[in-house]
Amino acid sequence: MPTILGQNQYGKAENRVVTITRDGATHHIKDLNVSVALSGDMEDVHYNGSNANVLPTDTTKNTVFAFAKEHGIESAEQFGIHLARHFVTSQEPIHRARIRIEEYAWERIETPGEAKHSFVRKGQETRLTQLTYDGESWEVLSGLKDLTVLNSTDSEFWGYVKDRYTTLKETHDRILATSVSSRWRFNWTDDAQEMPDWEASYARVKQHMLRAFAETYSLSLQQTLYQMGSRVIEECAEIDEIRFSLPNSHHFLVDLEPFGLKNDNEVYFASDRPYGLIEATVLRDGCEPRIPVDLTNL
Amino acid sequence: MPTILGQNQYGKAENRVVTITRDGATHHIKDLNVSVALSGDMEDVHYNGSNANVLPTDTTKNTVFAFAKEHGIESAEQFGIHLARHFVTSQEPIHRARIRIEEYAWERIETPGEAKHSFVRKGQETRLTQLTYDGESWEVLSGLKDLTVLNSTDSEFWGYVKDRYTTLKETHDRILATSVSSRWRFNWTDDAQEMPDWEASYARVKQHMLRAFAETYSLSLQQTLYQMGSRVIEECAEIDEIRFSLPNSHHFLVDLEPFGLKNDNEVYFASDRPYGLIEATVLRDGCEPRIPVDLTNL
Amino acid sequence: MPTILGQNQYGKAENRVVTITRDGATHHIKDLNVSVALSGDMEDVHYNGSNANVLPTDTTKNTVFAFAKEHGIESAEQFGIHLARHFVTSQEPIHRARIRIEEYAWERIETPGEAKHSFVRKGQETRLTQLTYDGESWEVLSGLKDLTVLNSTDSEFWGYVKDRYTTLKETHDRILATSVSSRWRFNWTDDAQEMPDWEASYARVKQHMLRAFAETYSLSLQQTLYQMGSRVIEECAEIDEIRFSLPNSHHFLVDLEPFGLKNDNEVYFASDRPYGLIEATVLRDGCEPRIPVDLTNL
Amino acid sequence: MPTILGQNQYGKAENRVVTITRDGATHHIKDLNVSVALSGDMEDVHYNGSNANVLPTDTTKNTVFAFAKEHGIESAEQFGIHLARHFVTSQEPIHRARIRIEEYAWERIETPGEAKHSFVRKGQETRLTQLTYDGESWEVLSGLKDLTVLNSTDSEFWGYVKDRYTTLKETHDRILATSVSSRWRFNWTDDAQEMPDWEASYARVKQHMLRAFAETYSLSLQQTLYQMGSRVIEECAEIDEIRFSLPNSHHFLVDLEPFGLKNDNEVYFASDRPYGLIEATVLRDGCEPRIPVDLTNL
Repeated sequence: MPTILGQNQYGKAENRVVTITRDGATHHIKDLNVSVALSGDMEDVHYNGSNANVLPTDTTKNTVFAFAKEHGIESAEQFGIHLARHFVTSQEPIHRARIRIEEYAWERIETPGEAKHSFVRKGQETRLTQLTYDGESWEVLSGLKDLTVLNSTDSEFWGYVKDRYTTLKETHDRILATSVSSRWRFNWTDDAQEMPDWEASYARVKQHMLRAFAETYSLSLQQTLYQMGSRVIEECAEIDEIRFSLPNSHHFLVDLEPFGLKNDNEVYFASDRPYGLIEATVLRDGCEPRIPVDLTNL
Repeated sequence: MPTILGQNQYGKAENRVVTITRDGATHHIKDLNVSVALSGDMEDVHYNGSNANVLPTDTTKNTVFAFAKEHGIESAEQFGIHLARHFVTSQEPIHRARIRIEEYAWERIETPGEAKHSFVRKGQETRLTQLTYDGESWEVLSGLKDLTVLNSTDSEFWGYVKDRYTTLKETHDRILATSVSSRWRFNWTDDAQEMPDWEASYARVKQHMLRAFAETYSLSLQQTLYQMGSRVIEECAEIDEIRFSLPNSHHFLVDLEPFGLKNDNEVYFASDRPYGLIEATVLRDGCEPRIPVDLTNL
Repeated sequence: MPTILGQNQYGKAENRVVTITRDGATHHIKDLNVSVALSGDMEDVHYNGSNANVLPTDTTKNTVFAFAKEHGIESAEQFGIHLARHFVTSQEPIHRARIRIEEYAWERIETPGEAKHSFVRKGQETRLTQLTYDGESWEVLSGLKDLTVLNSTDSEFWGYVKDRYTTLKETHDRILATSVSSRWRFNWTDDAQEMPDWEASYARVKQHMLRAFAETYSLSLQQTLYQMGSRVIEECAEIDEIRFSLPNSHHFLVDLEPFGLKNDNEVYFASDRPYGLIEATVLRDGCEPRIPVDLTNL
Repeated sequence: MPTILGQNQYGKAENRVVTITRDGATHHIKDLNVSVALSGDMEDVHYNGSNANVLPTDTTKNTVFAFAKEHGIESAEQFGIHLARHFVTSQEPIHRARIRIEEYAWERIETPGEAKHSFVRKGQETRLTQLTYDGESWEVLSGLKDLTVLNSTDSEFWGYVKDRYTTLKETHDRILATSVSSRWRFNWTDDAQEMPDWEASYARVKQHMLRAFAETYSLSLQQTLYQMGSRVIEECAEIDEIRFSLPNSHHFLVDLEPFGLKNDNEVYFASDRPYGLIEATVLRDGCEPRIPVDLTNL
């Protein structure tokens, strides 16, 4: 046979599980989108269609919903850890499990009464996590996407290389806007270590990321990115590495002179495509990079 | 000629205009997506390609950006009124202008310093407005879309018709969730009337809509819809009519019995398609309906 | 009560039904997305939550799948007629049914053997139909969306109105491109009339629409639109009215002079937003317009 | 400084370039979406905002359009090779360029005359390529996405692992459907080698992929995937590795028994989420895998 099987994985993707927890008249909600990917002794099913080692993807779906009852959803990370451990430890042929989770945030609708069971989706960024377990050690990448931010000043861009194809004018005051996609890696890798407080960690990362974006006087989006990343690493001891994919969401100053008007950094055209795309990893000194170059949505 | 021209309109759609207003170190942002549609004496351009009556769509785009400078953007509604009036009054062949606007909300990123020029997109619902002017009177429809809400209890569904194809079980406790799309019509139609406070009106409508959703003990989504609509009409004297398009975002209780578990309204599967779709208009008594049956996105 | 109920409708939207019909080793596929909207005596459910007149949306879903077995899917139109008639004639409180259908086309994967059961989705336009029945007469609107077409020459744009905000240069050779969204109305309204051949009619409309687009030397997209519409009406006796929504998908000639290059209508930038939007109805002379101004996706 | 910069890249993404080539009255069209990502000596811009080594993303955009004129677009691969080579060889600080391209296919609108300048977008799969150059060797990954295929029989699924959470029934006749996303790697890596015929290669890969899908009697989607991959490797000597991401697009047989009907593999519900997701690499024996585990859209 001139061909062989390489890396492979399978499972049920995008299981949309919502849990309601009741604390008297006060309800709590968790809203996740969970994807399972399993790897192991899977040569037979690829080479000749024998499913003897295949736990059906349908079963992985059932497990997600059953575990929401059996373990509850304390955090996306904790829930994913339960799932990954289960698949690797309960199924001999499965050597590695990767659980990806998107989480959608809700906030309460304020009402005068005592009942607290009404929610409106917050609708800002989507929280992400990915947990990988091989039976020995853990890799936890958490992150977010679609966090759209904008500085209306304190951004310049000049002093760059000019070649034959360069027409861009230098600027000393521009809008800097992006939609943040980021993943960060925890240094928790072993059940023997104390587990981070996943909820507190997420809030801390998001806060420092936003503040670093706002407080950086920017000479390039690369510089802002690095400031955002190093701030997170410095403020969050539980994180060793962070990667960003930052589209430069161009806001072009509209030329109003043909209409006899002066545009004093007031009116902008928000462009869709093309867009600059700035991607980089920031590492705690001495740590190895493990986050893939391409950030994927799920 | 066996065919004739019927209703027609044209213009530039989806002009993405962002304005920054400076109040010392404090900046304010407005972020709109503006679509222009003009009608009038347009037979010639359709029948034989003469553009003698055609103001180019490119010009309508330029006008949007120029007006953002000349008039500022106090509110989406006020901005649209400036535009619609301009096209109808400045161009003889144009008899009717319809301006549609989407508005995206931003909130400030909290920072310790004095500078206030950093923003994060709120990311909840999208605010909408449509302004139509024929040279004499105004029609103002405002609205919103993608406002996702959920009650985790106080919803029942029973006592319905059963026919040969009915298999649904009655329920006395279910999740009720929807993504609200709504348009409401102002009774301001004439420049001689006092103009509503568009910003305050929007905030009031949204608040009452959310509270009516939360406070209604629901026997059907139709009942909840009607409560939401009548609450808005009752609390907002400036509005005579409101229409909703409410997908019933099904959250199915997962059957955990095969796994020896009891699901006491805790674990749900959030389904995508198909979904119930409930649409209705609520009117102030004595008013004529004018909002179209089909709500369109832009 | 100061508010009253206006137009309302409900049903299950986006039922994705696929049927396989076997003709020996040759299989045939139909792939539809069916949405049901019912209206009638629905005051009670809105005013006080009584479901006594409400056939559940879940039942309307079941009916779609059951009818795919009982009646088969000869064409989207014929299938929708079965459904609409059923709801109005079998349920006393239901006075009007509107069925909307999207259809996705497949073509065969060519294989050497006799078996004909493999398909690849064609992936061009989506076919649409909407059938409305009130117990007496029918309204059939069919259509399509996302049919993307382009002429690389034979398009001009000049001789238009210039005002203070006009900066556009006239052109005598440009790309004309659009993504066609169209709906057309059949003059079949009564069971006593002979029913059109829905499949043949669709093929004929699409062919004439494409050919009129290709063969029109265009002075404006409005002119092209009118040619497309009148060609369909002239060639299809079963159709009395057609409406188009045509985005002008701008392909801007790139200025290569800064790089010492001449762009002889060779290199274009395909822009996303904003875009011109041209909408119009073409009618058989003497017929009343009934297609709504705003074409909706489903 | 406790943090350091890791992998980074930047450039202009999603440059939508369309070219028209005239051969008398016969026109040819190429329609690409080109993304540029450059890496090199970029520490300064991240650490302190110095742009001295930064060729602006705007310049990379200009280069795309200028090269469409200077070199033409013979194929997406050939065009990307021109671009990647240019950036690495003309800019000292740039050590690596990665060009990603999406290509949209068009077919001619048939018209009776001689003019051949009218096109309709084919609308099936999107063709992809990614070219990476470090100044010495090339890596070419081509691929496709959104190629939706379906077998209406000759698919079984049984003999799988059953655990506590397994409820799935075995089946000996089901629909097998997926939307193919695939990337394949060429063994052309050096300018000294003869370059493949990129257009012919793509057509060959797609044909064999479709035929292998259609001709495989499937006991699992994994088996079908492997057959598709090994067929491509066997038939295309220029390709050493191929990876697939195949969602199992579930078509569930609808239970019609409650309505007194028998569903003899005729009526299916096409489900959206969740879905099985099967991913694997197939390699020419003896070759090293280089395609990343996660296939990204652009």
